[in-house]
Amino acid sequence: MNAFNQYLEDHAADFEAELCEFLRIPSVSADAACKPQMDRAAQWVAERFRRLDFPVVEVIPTAGHPLVFAQSPTVPGAPTILVYGHYDVQPVDPLDQWTTPPFEPTVRDGKLFARGATDDKGQLLTHVKSAEAWIRTAGKLPLNLKYMIEGEEEIGSAGLEEFLKPNSKRLKCNCVVISDGCQFAPGVPAITYGLRGIAYFELRLTGPNRDLHSGSFGGSVTNPANALAQILAGLIDRHGKIKIPGFYRRVLPLSDRERSELAALPFDEQEYQRQLGVDGTFGEEGYTSLERRWARPTFDVCGLWSGFQGEGAKTVLPANAGAKISFRLVPNQKPEQVADGLRKQIAKLCPPGITWELTDLHGAPGVVVALDSPYVEAAARAIESAFGRRPVFTREGGSIPIVVRFAQVLKTTPLLIGWGQDDDNAHSPNEKFSLADFHRGIKASAKLWEELSKIKM
Amino acid sequence: MNAFNQYLEDHAADFEAELCEFLRIPSVSADAACKPQMDRAAQWVAERFRRLDFPVVEVIPTAGHPLVFAQSPTVPGAPTILVYGHYDVQPVDPLDQWTTPPFEPTVRDGKLFARGATDDKGQLLTHVKSAEAWIRTAGKLPLNLKYMIEGEEEIGSAGLEEFLKPNSKRLKCNCVVISDGCQFAPGVPAITYGLRGIAYFELRLTGPNRDLHSGSFGGSVTNPANALAQILAGLIDRHGKIKIPGFYRRVLPLSDRERSELAALPFDEQEYQRQLGVDGTFGEEGYTSLERRWARPTFDVCGLWSGFQGEGAKTVLPANAGAKISFRLVPNQKPEQVADGLRKQIAKLCPPGITWELTDLHGAPGVVVALDSPYVEAAARAIESAFGRRPVFTREGGSIPIVVRFAQVLKTTPLLIGWGQDDDNAHSPNEKFSLADFHRGIKASAKLWEELSKIKM
Repeated sequence: MNAFNQYLEDHAADFEAELCEFLRIPSVSADAACKPQMDRAAQWVAERFRRLDFPVVEVIPTAGHPLVFAQSPTVPGAPTILVYGHYDVQPVDPLDQWTTPPFEPTVRDGKLFARGATDDKGQLLTHVKSAEAWIRTAGKLPLNLKYMIEGEEEIGSAGLEEFLKPNSKRLKCNCVVISDGCQFAPGVPAITYGLRGIAYFELRLTGPNRDLHSGSFGGSVTNPANALAQILAGLIDRHGKIKIPGFYRRVLPLSDRERSELAALPFDEQEYQRQLGVDGTFGEEGYTSLERRWARPTFDVCGLWSGFQGEGAKTVLPANAGAKISFRLVPNQKPEQVADGLRKQIAKLCPPGITWELTDLHGAPGVVVALDSPYVEAAARAIESAFGRRPVFTREGGSIPIVVRFAQVLKTTPLLIGWGQDDDNAHSPNEKFSLADFHRGIKASAKLWEELSKIKM
Repeated sequence: MNAFNQYLEDHAADFEAELCEFLRIPSVSADAACKPQMDRAAQWVAERFRRLDFPVVEVIPTAGHPLVFAQSPTVPGAPTILVYGHYDVQPVDPLDQWTTPPFEPTVRDGKLFARGATDDKGQLLTHVKSAEAWIRTAGKLPLNLKYMIEGEEEIGSAGLEEFLKPNSKRLKCNCVVISDGCQFAPGVPAITYGLRGIAYFELRLTGPNRDLHSGSFGGSVTNPANALAQILAGLIDRHGKIKIPGFYRRVLPLSDRERSELAALPFDEQEYQRQLGVDGTFGEEGYTSLERRWARPTFDVCGLWSGFQGEGAKTVLPANAGAKISFRLVPNQKPEQVADGLRKQIAKLCPPGITWELTDLHGAPGVVVALDSPYVEAAARAIESAFGRRPVFTREGGSIPIVVRFAQVLKTTPLLIGWGQDDDNAHSPNEKFSLADFHRGIKASAKLWEELSKIKM
């Protein structure tokens, strides 16, 4: 391990220079003018693996931007780990808010500023440099690594989605490692062991065949805006419980260990409310804010519309009303079952004189990895050794579609270990990545290969 | 009465010619270019009273268009009746949809087509011609008539509103006669003995200080769109009863006579639903559709907005949500008391983490005249004698601000006797007025002066 640490130390400046080279490629997937840069970035990534003499290095064309797939020399009997990352970056607008140009990486105060620094070029490179350190010092990796680096993460991952199912055998792995997120707080590394799923709908109600005068007709015609309020209010009770038949039947309860891990997190409810500018909250009774955000299903109205929205008074009884509604799901809820239950509940709540239409816009299940999974334990030890403190265990309230797809299609365990920080401006001007986190990430990744290699297959 | 009927018969063609002269003046109050025509129309109206040798005939300037005030020779001990009407008309757009030009009155199939024919030039003229018939045949009127004919009804009556209070003594009367509306159906004349009032509000809810990601935050922050649905749904129960403290305390109940008069009206619930394109209705339990429209208070959401209203799915937890809400009131509810009760109920329903603001946009009480009022009975007899059938008694679900103001400021009884028809296109192209109704209106008006003159003061 001495030679290993020495290698990391000796090459720290090279690693940073290499990252800067990567960051200078303006690989904005959303910008058609960047197409040549996308190919250049893919080739740049592929070149990393060629330099490590990986037996498989492929740049795979898609209908959009190419995928890079690489595979390390086989280590029989050892686990196979898939590393996922993306070489594409967010657009840079508004350009005038950048202190230094987005594609001219600049170090200020120990942070490297550039578009893609944290999302995801800097983070994905840690898992390449860690492999390099193994190969250059130990002569080989202790396990089997596969890399899938895509160029369309910021625009929906269509090419990878297309590739995934037909190539699931090639991508087969014991666990998929993803560093495309954040630590819990500065100095507090985290393992994200769960994601919520989603079931998102549009509900449209239609009443009379035209807008009516609320004076002449009000009281004698069912008002779709009134009905919408009634239906939406009828989907949740005053204890924050969702009123959909069977909604909680499959919900995986929080274990005692999870609850105590979450309770131990440095989370200040008062500070949270202060930051959001509210003086109270409402949520499912019997759960803390973090439990509600990460591990309990929710119902949120994301949009509402009906009738007159302008200035002043217009006495209209609207012909229709609509809402966007989202349910965040937790394992093992199924979006299809939520949709079925929702339809039943709306049918029950909808008053006469109204027709309704529910459109299923988006559905994905939640994901959770058992805290006592050997992969989680391996990652915890690796992170502790590199960051000097044991990671906290967090879940994420949102969904990450590609993680869910990996879990679904490859039936593999996702290991989400983000090296970034909340304030890294991932999708904003002045994106940055702490160089200390970059180097700790490489070290943790290298240690992770060692820890994972000890898992008995 | 023979001489009287003879006079009407002999002058029928003159009356029509005079109405056409009036209709040729393009007195569009909303069109600044019509200002000279507004003055011309006012003078034209004043000239009618001068020709009848009325002792008071005034064209009163306002900040907008002039008012015409006239008063007949005093008949001591007889009732004093105020006739209200307006010489201004609606704009004519879209002009290309008129079969004949709007200011070139044309008779087709017994109907006189022109802008203002029914609204309100034709109708107001009936009450002038009736006075003329009395004076030319009996030598004098049997009672005291005052006329207030304004030129801003279609744009909000600001001038009259300004004039009303300081001049309430000059306008003092036992009852105000208004013909600016419709019969119940062709051949079914009506007396509108009640109007609903209104209390209209804007409710704005604010939650977190910015739109949040519904995945990352959902469940731990009170969602203003959810809260809005909950509050609105909490303002009315499943029996259609409004849940505001004291809301029904002052509601004047329908009398048995009213209920049977309304039940006797030719109203077909199935046909009503068919015309509105609905297959059912929801309203206050225990009341018929007409009762709900005319004589019971209601709660209607007139507008709703929050968060994302575009295509597809956006997973936003909105920072705010709002609604326009309208209560239709009946006598003797007071808009201020409804506002107070509403504030209490919202405070009770609003969940923690949400601040709310209620803006009072518009309020007016309802008006109702007792069916056994001598004025109503006099009008019923007059109408029956002219139209050959007893009028039905209807109420109106909307409010007519100027009627409410007369009732409030002059403490007088409004008598709404419209000679028009529902399909007269009052605010649309091809406005018309039945010439038969014009003549019946003159006859009914003349008879009304006689009937009203019998009322003991």
